[in-house]
Amino acid sequence: MFSAQTVIRDLENIRRRAPLVHNITNFVVMNLTANALLSIGASPVMAHAVEEVEEMVGLASALVINIGTLSRHWVEAMGRAIRAAEKKKIPVVLDPVGAGATSFRTATARQLLESGPVAIIRGNGSEILALVNSGTRTKGVDSLEGPEAAVEAGRQLSHQYGCAVSISGPTDIVVRNGETIRVENGHPLMPRVTGLGCTASALTGAFAAVNPDSLEAAAGAMAVMGICGELAAGQARGPASFELHFLDWLHLIGEKEIKERLKIIL
Amino acid sequence: MFSAQTVIRDLENIRRRAPLVHNITNFVVMNLTANALLSIGASPVMAHAVEEVEEMVGLASALVINIGTLSRHWVEAMGRAIRAAEKKKIPVVLDPVGAGATSFRTATARQLLESGPVAIIRGNGSEILALVNSGTRTKGVDSLEGPEAAVEAGRQLSHQYGCAVSISGPTDIVVRNGETIRVENGHPLMPRVTGLGCTASALTGAFAAVNPDSLEAAAGAMAVMGICGELAAGQARGPASFELHFLDWLHLIGEKEIKERLKIIL
Amino acid sequence: MFSAQTVIRDLENIRRRAPLVHNITNFVVMNLTANALLSIGASPVMAHAVEEVEEMVGLASALVINIGTLSRHWVEAMGRAIRAAEKKKIPVVLDPVGAGATSFRTATARQLLESGPVAIIRGNGSEILALVNSGTRTKGVDSLEGPEAAVEAGRQLSHQYGCAVSISGPTDIVVRNGETIRVENGHPLMPRVTGLGCTASALTGAFAAVNPDSLEAAAGAMAVMGICGELAAGQARGPASFELHFLDWLHLIGEKEIKERLKIIL
Repeated sequence: MFSAQTVIRDLENIRRRAPLVHNITNFVVMNLTANALLSIGASPVMAHAVEEVEEMVGLASALVINIGTLSRHWVEAMGRAIRAAEKKKIPVVLDPVGAGATSFRTATARQLLESGPVAIIRGNGSEILALVNSGTRTKGVDSLEGPEAAVEAGRQLSHQYGCAVSISGPTDIVVRNGETIRVENGHPLMPRVTGLGCTASALTGAFAAVNPDSLEAAAGAMAVMGICGELAAGQARGPASFELHFLDWLHLIGEKEIKERLKIIL
Repeated sequence: MFSAQTVIRDLENIRRRAPLVHNITNFVVMNLTANALLSIGASPVMAHAVEEVEEMVGLASALVINIGTLSRHWVEAMGRAIRAAEKKKIPVVLDPVGAGATSFRTATARQLLESGPVAIIRGNGSEILALVNSGTRTKGVDSLEGPEAAVEAGRQLSHQYGCAVSISGPTDIVVRNGETIRVENGHPLMPRVTGLGCTASALTGAFAAVNPDSLEAAAGAMAVMGICGELAAGQARGPASFELHFLDWLHLIGEKEIKERLKIIL
Repeated sequence: MFSAQTVIRDLENIRRRAPLVHNITNFVVMNLTANALLSIGASPVMAHAVEEVEEMVGLASALVINIGTLSRHWVEAMGRAIRAAEKKKIPVVLDPVGAGATSFRTATARQLLESGPVAIIRGNGSEILALVNSGTRTKGVDSLEGPEAAVEAGRQLSHQYGCAVSISGPTDIVVRNGETIRVENGHPLMPRVTGLGCTASALTGAFAAVNPDSLEAAAGAMAVMGICGELAAGQARGPASFELHFLDWLHLIGEKEIKERLKIIL
């Protein structure tokens, strides 16, 4: 049963093992993603060349694919990386950034889902809806839909691809088949910092590297995100100081903060 | 007549409408650009693949093109995006980063100016001069010329392309045909942070998204930049703390700060 | 003889001359690299297009090549840039990020070393070992080997390529033929910030731009890195506040801090 203890144990394992998390992600967030993984205790690597992605996956404990700034060569590398992850039996996290905004993104996200097993899809409401329903409205990479509106779509994706689906928003909702975990931690400043959704996907990769239960891994990552967001907001004057304190808290967070603050609905 | 009221009104409209600003920009500043747009209240999106730029422009309220780290495929995407912006009648801001430093950059900037209507060109003195005069000296992406030296070149570009030209420096000078606005806000630490010129271009896109008067939009963006720079400098110990406070101030700035601090010469 | 005076003199020259440092580096660290160079007083430029790298090298006082996020087109541009630097007689710094992690990276680093004279190779223990010994273990871009384990490999590279080799770790070790400088400044938080190794390479480029002695330039850069790290650590709560204070200290550091804190073993 998912609880504060699950999150505490996974966090300790991330810090003890420092799992290598291989990211093929977008240009906007690469620095933040790497820093968030280092702050929490994981070891990030970024590599996208078709010449090396498979070999790099061979060193990694999790693969995170993020389509935030796509181009054709990268899509090929992403597919190869997913197939290499399948062979190596490491978990894959897919972040379908901006799915629904352009047909290229929606098609690419769907194509990647077909190219090999994905353990966890993590996106906002609009993105999750767009993977199921081609007529979804979006506004670039920001969501026009709350996560509740996407729960049924998430459940459908979970059945179709045998994965957990993590939908972020004011309440984060993680579904896998009939199971659901709602994480109520977080803060309204979080969407004012670019790439915190992508950061959530990267941390989900770190949790999946140490916990084979995809539902727990996805929920644990969102819990740590949300709690660090609350702690950072107490010290921030605006989005930039919020981001700084958030990253510091990924480094500082421990048993005490998780026990005191975790708010979940099972 | 441009005044504090113009800036206050435009800023409120940015925050109320959260216009989607589509950026095709350089790798160095993508994260800062997105965060600056989020901090001020706009909604940023980055997309450069030829497969999707036109569709993404179709969702946007302004397009910002920045040639800071060029490569051939991106130039094609930039041209397509500008033509899509023309069809959708949304304003285009062009930042000719490093024009004059290499002939590839100068030629690309000129080619983009020919590919469709640009509402505002925003660059430093060297870059604006280089667009007009092929013999201009530059030092990479930093300016060797103050903005005053580029006013005539700016006016010439304004006539030739029917756009406003925003020249940044200790005093920012915005020209359109015979009109001129000088913005005297700012701080010497600003050029010690990479990408604040690019940030100015992105914010110019946000202002242009809510104000069809290109001269006012360009001047309003420089005014907010400069005032936030002054406020940040009062709290900074060096360039990094300056950048943090600057981004926080983009979030916090309101009527009071603009009224108290705006220094313009019409 | 290398001493605090050497570092102080080089730092003053960087600030007086603001040398243009041309970087072809990875997506993860571009922003940090540019900001670190600006903070210390140099002038950064990033350019990677084959159409312009040679012309940009022609404006620069040093070239820094970093293979952190490789792809094929970039490798071609890197080779061209090194050959242009040879013609212009400006120093080249090579950072073989992740050499040993994939054969593409190891092969690329070696190929670049063959394409023209490199003044300084700067890497962590694993990377330096991998350039010499194909069987080296690595963990993505993080080192599994302390710098002492790589001293002999460093000396071998120094002989083979006629360059200095700067090996970073808890103690930084710079070797050139039979000479060695150990820099004992630094702080354990430094590897928790992404790209501080890449920052060291960029600052090494700035020092090499003002000091033709590659051993001194390499050691001076590591000394300033380490001292700023110690100063930042005293004010930091975690990796993000550490990074902020570190960058501020690059701007603030002067004679006093260097004299008081420099710890070297010649």
